[in-house]
Amino acid sequence: MTYAINPEWRTHTTFDVNSENDGLEVIIGGWVQQIRDKGKLIFLTIRDQSGLCQVTLHEAETNSNVWKTCKDLTIETVVSIKGVVKADPRSKLGAELTPSSIKVHSLAALKFPIDLTKKKTQMDIDTIFRFRELSIRDPKVSTIMKLKNIIAAEIRTFFKLKGFTEIFTPLILTASTEGGAEQFHIDYFGQPAVLAQSCQFYKQAALACHEKVYGIIPSWRAEKSHTPKHITEFWQVENEIAFATDKEIMQVQEDLIVHVLEQVKKQGAIHLVELNRIISIPKKPFKRISFNKAKSIILDLGIESNPTEDFGATEETALSQAFEEPFFVTQFPSQLRGMYYATDPKNPELTLSLDLIAPEGFGELSSGGQRVFEYEVLKNRTIQKGFDPDNFKWYLRMFKFGMPPHAGYGLGFERLIRWIANLPHIREASMFPRTPEIFQP
Amino acid sequence: MTYAINPEWRTHTTFDVNSENDGLEVIIGGWVQQIRDKGKLIFLTIRDQSGLCQVTLHEAETNSNVWKTCKDLTIETVVSIKGVVKADPRSKLGAELTPSSIKVHSLAALKFPIDLTKKKTQMDIDTIFRFRELSIRDPKVSTIMKLKNIIAAEIRTFFKLKGFTEIFTPLILTASTEGGAEQFHIDYFGQPAVLAQSCQFYKQAALACHEKVYGIIPSWRAEKSHTPKHITEFWQVENEIAFATDKEIMQVQEDLIVHVLEQVKKQGAIHLVELNRIISIPKKPFKRISFNKAKSIILDLGIESNPTEDFGATEETALSQAFEEPFFVTQFPSQLRGMYYATDPKNPELTLSLDLIAPEGFGELSSGGQRVFEYEVLKNRTIQKGFDPDNFKWYLRMFKFGMPPHAGYGLGFERLIRWIANLPHIREASMFPRTPEIFQP
Repeated sequence: MTYAINPEWRTHTTFDVNSENDGLEVIIGGWVQQIRDKGKLIFLTIRDQSGLCQVTLHEAETNSNVWKTCKDLTIETVVSIKGVVKADPRSKLGAELTPSSIKVHSLAALKFPIDLTKKKTQMDIDTIFRFRELSIRDPKVSTIMKLKNIIAAEIRTFFKLKGFTEIFTPLILTASTEGGAEQFHIDYFGQPAVLAQSCQFYKQAALACHEKVYGIIPSWRAEKSHTPKHITEFWQVENEIAFATDKEIMQVQEDLIVHVLEQVKKQGAIHLVELNRIISIPKKPFKRISFNKAKSIILDLGIESNPTEDFGATEETALSQAFEEPFFVTQFPSQLRGMYYATDPKNPELTLSLDLIAPEGFGELSSGGQRVFEYEVLKNRTIQKGFDPDNFKWYLRMFKFGMPPHAGYGLGFERLIRWIANLPHIREASMFPRTPEIFQP
Repeated sequence: MTYAINPEWRTHTTFDVNSENDGLEVIIGGWVQQIRDKGKLIFLTIRDQSGLCQVTLHEAETNSNVWKTCKDLTIETVVSIKGVVKADPRSKLGAELTPSSIKVHSLAALKFPIDLTKKKTQMDIDTIFRFRELSIRDPKVSTIMKLKNIIAAEIRTFFKLKGFTEIFTPLILTASTEGGAEQFHIDYFGQPAVLAQSCQFYKQAALACHEKVYGIIPSWRAEKSHTPKHITEFWQVENEIAFATDKEIMQVQEDLIVHVLEQVKKQGAIHLVELNRIISIPKKPFKRISFNKAKSIILDLGIESNPTEDFGATEETALSQAFEEPFFVTQFPSQLRGMYYATDPKNPELTLSLDLIAPEGFGELSSGGQRVFEYEVLKNRTIQKGFDPDNFKWYLRMFKFGMPPHAGYGLGFERLIRWIANLPHIREASMFPRTPEIFQP
């Protein structure tokens, strides 16, 4: 924790202010989270990334400069405090710090707009995101982001162990690819361009270079959705595999989810406790339910549903709530899936596709399937879908010159965080989320 | 290598077609890179990510269907071939495959526009990037990207080991931040927005949540530069540390570079051989040269230079060529650095800033320094730089409520790849680069 830290500003963390270090001289650095001024006695609560510690000052025993400085402190001021750790069985934390000197780095203005102690009523969501640069000081945000850090690292560890190569795909794309209206438009040196809605075409292309690829890659969707599972800027766990079918990519996702959950339980146990979240490891193989079967489950739940349309938000939530472990919905009808999905050789009305659905109402985590890899088939699918093949020139060209059968999926990174951390809204899975209403800070 | 692969299409890789596996029945899957048809004898070279293998067919000994199929093959066709490994000391690869069956997945069109065998003259750079989705089949591209994969993983491993938290910062930002003209403009639901030129403000903000942060994060610069070290879409290794000074971030960069190079030598030895690149591990601490000293070195090299201006391209290359190991240039004049750089308390004309420069002419890798963290100082610096503080509302506000002293830097990810892999142009460090001229594929 002290690597790369200036030792004049911090030699130890607040975590080190514990009974085992009784008598040790330390310098801690952090934010003044609470001040209790009892006249001749002051208690400060100092916050850093390791937690909290208490600094206790008795006027009679304190250097007068230190005393005076502490009398003038404000909430959220950043300080470095030198002092001696004193074990104290009466203290909640088992020890406190008796300061010999204090350096005020940055005296905070009064009226910090966020109530970190949560003593007042719950902050409204609008305030939290309007002052997001301040509300991220809430230890709950830090906890979620630490979980996210573990999950990102373990996703990559998983793919590395399994022989995948990480890719970095382009994010500025030429206009007029798949989905017109939902793209953010950019002026690229006078030419029309868009932000990538997915790296679909590029991760498929990358198979000719690496065969087994993955990445955690940003994507954008200019949709005015106001559901708890949509943000406009999101990262996707992208995975594409040459010589794989829909069967293999289901196994990969099972292995990935189980690996990540096991590691979260192991490395993130304390964070799960703080979030009051209990994680159980799902059994492999996950259940596989055909699209038609899923529709009948939804109807049985008494929810209206058109059997030829994709799941609406209510349907998806209800279906998801009907399960206690993640499961796959398979065999989506061809008219509901993109042109690059392979159809079932036994029934061209169906695709070899699948969505991974989180349980407990969290809904869709990933979407994927086996891909079309034959040039003529893909060209026809493009036309059938109402697109002009000329808009997919390089993409189609690559299939002309030999591409292997392959399969893949994209898994919503923030959706995964939301499910694992049990968050009411996906925006909480992002430090600085983007929604139709929020684009600053 | 066979995890997640359909065993009907591949049980082994071409690497497994070696003398130790003599007699083993395997299925390999890959691209037909070369066909030598000698009438009653056909030699195929099959390429996959593990390398190449030879498939030898004698008409007299081959099933007539297999023979006929192989007679009709074209370059870059994708096949799965079942056969028996046969050790053959005469063969360059020590063994060959005698096929019993072949499945043609995708018969490639004639006239593949890229010469992967490099027998013809060198492809021109324009063709290479115009057909990038095909030219990435060149094993040299794959080699560079495999190195990139190792470097990305080891950067993250380094930061993880040192207690840093990975962050994901927003990429769509409100318009009118630091640099006006060089931004790509986006229409964000009718509001003007831009693509992030850097995550500077957000990584600083993240310190209040995590204290020690890093990320490999995309950035954009709408500059019509045509130097070998500029692309418009690039990823930055971002690092920011609370309670750190310029001294610590130089040490972190030394440790990071040495860690990455050591791991590249270890895990990427074969790739370095393929790229004909010899890597030596630089000694720590790296040399530190003041901006003024750097200017005098440049003048001594007989190169014109204005002592009050930043290094031009020629200056930077010459300075870089004068060194054999990476080095720091420090103490850049205040007027040359952004408003968020702290000035030297002993000399307000200078900043506590630094650039890390790669040797051998590769030039700047990173730029960083100690930051301003006092609200009033930052507000004044904003005004001095000619900006309206109202355009930096949330950014300034966060310093009002207590921020620690801190330091950080951004290191060009593709620049690092370019240097390590010894590439003539940075665009080769990207699978699908973006330059003022290239934005597809």
